[in-house]
Amino acid sequence: MATLNDIGVAAAINILTAFAFFLAFAMLRIQPVNDRVYFPKWYIKGLRSSPLVNGSAFGSKFVNLDLRSYTRFLNWMPAALQMPEPELIDHAGLDSAVYLRIYLLGLKIFGPIALIAFTVTIPVNWSNNTLEHSGLTYSDIDKISISNIPIGSHKFWTHLVLAYCFTFWTCYVLKREYEIVAAMRLHFLASDQRRPDQFTVLVRNVPPYPDESVTDLVQHFFLVNHPHHYLSHQLVYNANKLSELVNEKKKIQNWLDFYQNKYKRNPLKRPSLKTGFLGLWGNRVDAIDFYTSIVERLSRDICGEREKVNSNTKSIMPAAFVSFKTRWGAAVCAQTQQSRNPTTWLTEWAPEPRDVYWENLAIPFVFLTIRRLIAAVAFFFLTFFFMIPIAIVQSLANIESIEKALPFLKPIIEVKFIKSFIQGFLPGIALKIFLLLLPTILMMMSKFEGFISLSALERRSASRYYFFQFINVFLGSIITGTAFQQLNHFIHQSTSQIPKTIGVSIPMKATFFITYIMVDGWAGVAGEILRLKPLIIYHLKNSFLVKTEKDREEAMDPGTVGFNTGEPQIQLYFLLGLVYAVVTPILLPFITVFFALAYVVYRHQIINVYHQEYESAAAFWPDVHVRVVAALIVSQLLLMGLLSTKEASQSTPLLITLPVLTICFHRFCKGRYEPAFVRYPLQEAMMKDTLERAKEANLNLKGFLQNAYIHPVFKSADGSDSESESEWERSPALVATKRTSKRFTPMPSKDGGSLLSLDQVNDECLKP
Amino acid sequence: MATLNDIGVAAAINILTAFAFFLAFAMLRIQPVNDRVYFPKWYIKGLRSSPLVNGSAFGSKFVNLDLRSYTRFLNWMPAALQMPEPELIDHAGLDSAVYLRIYLLGLKIFGPIALIAFTVTIPVNWSNNTLEHSGLTYSDIDKISISNIPIGSHKFWTHLVLAYCFTFWTCYVLKREYEIVAAMRLHFLASDQRRPDQFTVLVRNVPPYPDESVTDLVQHFFLVNHPHHYLSHQLVYNANKLSELVNEKKKIQNWLDFYQNKYKRNPLKRPSLKTGFLGLWGNRVDAIDFYTSIVERLSRDICGEREKVNSNTKSIMPAAFVSFKTRWGAAVCAQTQQSRNPTTWLTEWAPEPRDVYWENLAIPFVFLTIRRLIAAVAFFFLTFFFMIPIAIVQSLANIESIEKALPFLKPIIEVKFIKSFIQGFLPGIALKIFLLLLPTILMMMSKFEGFISLSALERRSASRYYFFQFINVFLGSIITGTAFQQLNHFIHQSTSQIPKTIGVSIPMKATFFITYIMVDGWAGVAGEILRLKPLIIYHLKNSFLVKTEKDREEAMDPGTVGFNTGEPQIQLYFLLGLVYAVVTPILLPFITVFFALAYVVYRHQIINVYHQEYESAAAFWPDVHVRVVAALIVSQLLLMGLLSTKEASQSTPLLITLPVLTICFHRFCKGRYEPAFVRYPLQEAMMKDTLERAKEANLNLKGFLQNAYIHPVFKSADGSDSESESEWERSPALVATKRTSKRFTPMPSKDGGSLLSLDQVNDECLKP
Repeated sequence: MATLNDIGVAAAINILTAFAFFLAFAMLRIQPVNDRVYFPKWYIKGLRSSPLVNGSAFGSKFVNLDLRSYTRFLNWMPAALQMPEPELIDHAGLDSAVYLRIYLLGLKIFGPIALIAFTVTIPVNWSNNTLEHSGLTYSDIDKISISNIPIGSHKFWTHLVLAYCFTFWTCYVLKREYEIVAAMRLHFLASDQRRPDQFTVLVRNVPPYPDESVTDLVQHFFLVNHPHHYLSHQLVYNANKLSELVNEKKKIQNWLDFYQNKYKRNPLKRPSLKTGFLGLWGNRVDAIDFYTSIVERLSRDICGEREKVNSNTKSIMPAAFVSFKTRWGAAVCAQTQQSRNPTTWLTEWAPEPRDVYWENLAIPFVFLTIRRLIAAVAFFFLTFFFMIPIAIVQSLANIESIEKALPFLKPIIEVKFIKSFIQGFLPGIALKIFLLLLPTILMMMSKFEGFISLSALERRSASRYYFFQFINVFLGSIITGTAFQQLNHFIHQSTSQIPKTIGVSIPMKATFFITYIMVDGWAGVAGEILRLKPLIIYHLKNSFLVKTEKDREEAMDPGTVGFNTGEPQIQLYFLLGLVYAVVTPILLPFITVFFALAYVVYRHQIINVYHQEYESAAAFWPDVHVRVVAALIVSQLLLMGLLSTKEASQSTPLLITLPVLTICFHRFCKGRYEPAFVRYPLQEAMMKDTLERAKEANLNLKGFLQNAYIHPVFKSADGSDSESESEWERSPALVATKRTSKRFTPMPSKDGGSLLSLDQVNDECLKP
Repeated sequence: MATLNDIGVAAAINILTAFAFFLAFAMLRIQPVNDRVYFPKWYIKGLRSSPLVNGSAFGSKFVNLDLRSYTRFLNWMPAALQMPEPELIDHAGLDSAVYLRIYLLGLKIFGPIALIAFTVTIPVNWSNNTLEHSGLTYSDIDKISISNIPIGSHKFWTHLVLAYCFTFWTCYVLKREYEIVAAMRLHFLASDQRRPDQFTVLVRNVPPYPDESVTDLVQHFFLVNHPHHYLSHQLVYNANKLSELVNEKKKIQNWLDFYQNKYKRNPLKRPSLKTGFLGLWGNRVDAIDFYTSIVERLSRDICGEREKVNSNTKSIMPAAFVSFKTRWGAAVCAQTQQSRNPTTWLTEWAPEPRDVYWENLAIPFVFLTIRRLIAAVAFFFLTFFFMIPIAIVQSLANIESIEKALPFLKPIIEVKFIKSFIQGFLPGIALKIFLLLLPTILMMMSKFEGFISLSALERRSASRYYFFQFINVFLGSIITGTAFQQLNHFIHQSTSQIPKTIGVSIPMKATFFITYIMVDGWAGVAGEILRLKPLIIYHLKNSFLVKTEKDREEAMDPGTVGFNTGEPQIQLYFLLGLVYAVVTPILLPFITVFFALAYVVYRHQIINVYHQEYESAAAFWPDVHVRVVAALIVSQLLLMGLLSTKEASQSTPLLITLPVLTICFHRFCKGRYEPAFVRYPLQEAMMKDTLERAKEANLNLKGFLQNAYIHPVFKSADGSDSESESEWERSPALVATKRTSKRFTPMPSKDGGSLLSLDQVNDECLKP
């Protein structure tokens, strides 16, 4: 077992690693050539143009020669914290701002808890000699944990009282935060300018009717049943094949650009390639001609397919985006049942146009239930049996089989050093690859289930990912066994035994989790800011593909916050913190440091890097809330199990009431705050409608909504790009920009010439 | 253990008992003097007038002298089955008609199952000698149960296949039935004539506002947020004290009538009474004067209280019945969220005026959550610890303490026969009294929880009663232990062990449950038709209280179907049938007989006796459905436990899929049919609105709704009676009557003079 010394060494190593990452980031960041990697958001917002254009000396275009700027290598941290929250919401959207509040929530919960736990439990735990007399091996960590208290001692009352205090504090913070976020959401929706999704409802499962087309059917139905409110509707087409073709063309176009660039740089030799598998064999042809012909063929196919989609009634799905004259009408339609048969004419709020996941709109509604069942079963097997295929791969991927398959590698593999390296490395690699792919697999599952908005997809993936981590990382590390072994174990064990089994092993695993937090939390977060992968890819693309400024813009990959992977990771820390708060409080400072560090890093990234794909107005908060509450209940049950093995059974009734109270708290919060995230109150809708009517009496709402919900492949003329964003999409960004640019100057301006002047910004804004 | 012979004897006894009840019923029923006890529904509908008025000979007014009618003593059975269902709905309401369908559901499920189980399992079970060779004592019942199959035999596949067949059959019948009932409900709501609850929404938790009264607040809110639909509203007053006074006055009035009648019969002696406790001591006063003075005082109090309620703003609750111009407007308001704060301006469909439980409207909304929590905890303790107070009472109520308390009884008690009788009887009596009071206790709990309609109260009581019976009758009989002992047992047992423990004891308890079914089901149902308690009470009232025809009408106590006690009883039979279908199919015929008998008896009672208190349009069906599904899942789990002890573990995966499939089935039904019971589709609402507008263009809806939701104590002039029913209440009964009277003649017409002639009926109907 690890001593405090070991932990100190591990901490030092990880702090140094994190520091190294920060240092590297500080160096790379101020090089103008990396500017688009580290500040893409400003480029996307049009607030910063390429340093290649504005720079003066040639060298300073690529390398920063201002030595002074190297001395202030950590000054991005205060800068990241400077932007006030309302401005952050304007700049990066409510989703991002509320996502940051999850880290703040962690700080608010664990800061005071760490303080109290240290001042109270550590002296109480330390003042015993149980472990010294037990003859067991133990470490300093164990001396300050609950293990050091003798069986049946009255000192357990301290832990009991603390468990109550921590529960009340956590609930208090959770409630306040839910309240604030709900208010922020409502305020955002109220102050937000006109958006098409406020007026639009998605209708699914329009029942088939032989004599009428879908469009007539929808129009008649809503004209009859919402006579004063119906405005227009937009049919949903199954354009999946079309968008496949468009994507295909884009890919080929990239290759064509690559070879054209190559030819331009070296005009003496026309590039050529082999047409076979991966360019390894086949006929050698002229690359530019080859790809040009493919692009032409695809363009023809796209035109044909587009015509087919437009003319063929089979590509019209029995679904439609129905728009209403008022927000009130849309709110009514989205919240009520339309027809006698509750599985037809299903209405729900339309997601924001950016948020729509178009592929899934083409899934017939009847299959959704079946798909959901299949996905649930698949997820169950994935969680509990994922080790089986990995074990098979591991047994296949040994040195002997590699030597057999690729005999020419034999002399290299036989070198002793390499052999042992491969032998140590290979078994782990299959697992590592699986874990890296897991979020993608889960996202595919969610897509299969048929959610129709990106935000819903991410939320579902996040909750599955959390469950997987809970079973396989948290419980798996504590009980050390695969999930299936655990399951088997639990089924054959008495119900009251389960918390005991886990409870007992918890204090013993504290050092493992401390190391985990430092590697995954500290060094991992510091690595996030470095953006190594986007950096490499950007420079590769920049060298080979970029021809115009627009290409360069596309080459930047700002990425997103990544709710489906980021949030479950944070939740794991909430779980660890709450479980260990009473048991081994030494874990808490590590978690607090993680939350603080991650808050600063992600705030910086959200301001400067990540580009928001959609705006769900913090629709994910109920999920965040419920998972923290679940972690709280788990921690209470495990503490109960632990104390019952310590023969402090007189405390059991008091411990049982804790989860009951927590569940009541959850139900209260659900009733009080959740409706703000799923419904739209009529009063609010009416208020906004009235205000709008007063302000803009002659508003052409129909024109405003006309093209909002057209499938993106139909929007642009050639279907290759989202250039022709409709009016509503561009305008909010401009408004936000205006406000931001006046009050907040991003730091890179100090590097000279890389930011537009204020006049330029204003000029930009005045353009239509 | 009981042999087939024992069962035969028990069956004979119970059949004889049931027969005796039917015979007694047949005798009592045709006596004109009992007419109001056995046909009160016809009196209430105005289709039958008192035989005392119309009879010719004096004797025939009280005793039926037509000997022929005694020979046809079972002819009420075909008569009860004659009335077709649509007419039954007109006559007794949809609730009653659908309630009868629960019995039909039982017949539909268990008829075919019994047939298959008999032809398949009994030969399979019988053809083994396991029990003969086991050396255990066993009975013939066990020989044809699953116990007779050797451990690890392949014959268990038969049972497995049967379990699948039975599950599919049950689900199929359930789905069809759900479909039919949902259609019936929608048809009823659509074809039903105008009712105030279709236009009215109950708004609760109107937020306090210092400058405006509640009535202005409500009006402004709905005028602003539902401008085209709001019509009017009716405030809710806290008139609980007033209705208490009114009830008090009614009770005292009864006593006054009693003494006045007494005095009239014996004018020589003015009746007197003692004013002390129970009339046992105190001053002797003149009874008529005494009660007259109390009635006068109460009348004054009532007037004062009424004025207070009307004038004092504190008696106005922050709730209101808001009426809309159209059904569409009401449907929208009931299904949407009104205000930003989801705990204010809460809207829900108003219950039917008859269905409103006025007392609970006065409960402030904030207390409801707390009340619900308290009720849940109380119910938990009631279910699992109810034996504790009963055990205490039992230990106190022994012969010695009776002798001590009431020494004068000693000589009687000491008689040996009486002593042994009391000793055998006393311990049970406390339990019996508790079980008799249980529905009342549960109903009080539901009232405490604050449900605002009688139908909701009954539904909640029914589900609690069912849970109590499941734990204490079903599990309690199988594991033989109090619920708390079971709970303790289960907590300390492995999860996989629980179904095994129960599963193993199931076949052994078959004979017990057969006896239970015969006593509770056969004889009990036969006893229901006799109506012994109402019979006695009616004759007591008739002798002492009745002065006018109106009094006599009040003296009849038609009773109601009693969903809160009746439905859980039926559900217990569903549970028993499904659990034993595969294990010991000999139980099935007994259950089938119960369902058939109960169907006929309750159909008779519903046609002739029970008076519907409210019409919820079969809102209880989802509860019925979900409880049968739960019984199905319990039966599957127990079969799994049983088979796993029989070492037929290869069947486990197949058995696990059964509950999973059943849960999927339940979710499907919930999605497909439940909305018909909780929501009102806008399409339907719009259709009815349009039709109505076309038919009655100049409808005065405001007048129609004006007094619909006034507290009943305000309706009548003196607040003592519900005589002044508003227009809408009387009209539907008349319509139903007209149609019924033409096509259906209730049998008692044969007894001569006890039914109005058709002309008289029509005359009656033409009266306003």
